[in-house]
Amino acid sequence: MFGLIGKLVAQPGQRDALAAILLRGSRDMPGCLSYIVALDATEPDALWVTEVWTSPEQHQASLALPSVREAIAAGKPLIASFGSFTTTQPLGGHGLMPPVHA
Amino acid sequence: MFGLIGKLVAQPGQRDALAAILLRGSRDMPGCLSYIVALDATEPDALWVTEVWTSPEQHQASLALPSVREAIAAGKPLIASFGSFTTTQPLGGHGLMPPVHA
Repeated sequence: MFGLIGKLVAQPGQRDALAAILLRGSRDMPGCLSYIVALDATEPDALWVTEVWTSPEQHQASLALPSVREAIAAGKPLIASFGSFTTTQPLGGHGLMPPVHA
Repeated sequence: MFGLIGKLVAQPGQRDALAAILLRGSRDMPGCLSYIVALDATEPDALWVTEVWTSPEQHQASLALPSVREAIAAGKPLIASFGSFTTTQPLGGHGLMPPVHA
């Protein structure tokens, strides 16, 4: 498995809009086992995206999906900066599930 | 929802053992929607735990579960240090699921 833990800082006041775009754009991605969008509990403009994929190739391929390309285009202007960004090798746990129709 | 994104640094050579303890200890926790253990892809002794709970109270209550208490007791000596630790408010996404019998 392949994982990403990334922090984004939204333009002031744009965090909810950015989160909505990320959530909408990440539905039904082949090879995606987990994709969770969360607000930072203490930093007002920061949010976190945690992802698990069957492989790095599946994650890479997702960037070409129309829904993801649209989300990137719509979300980019709302991002002020990128925070920490970590790649991981997920081992397992609870909450890893492929899309229903994958 | 309530979330945690935490980094642990294991004693040298103990990362796999620590990960196994965390995975074993985190099965079937009421109120847990996601709990994923992942190796840091670049730091040899680091691992990440990302968690989503229905509420902070459910997370707190989990610390009293026998399985979790045993995991903490077994894992503690294998931990060299704690890295970044972030609390979040997860909004949604893919891969949020309660235990089957919860």
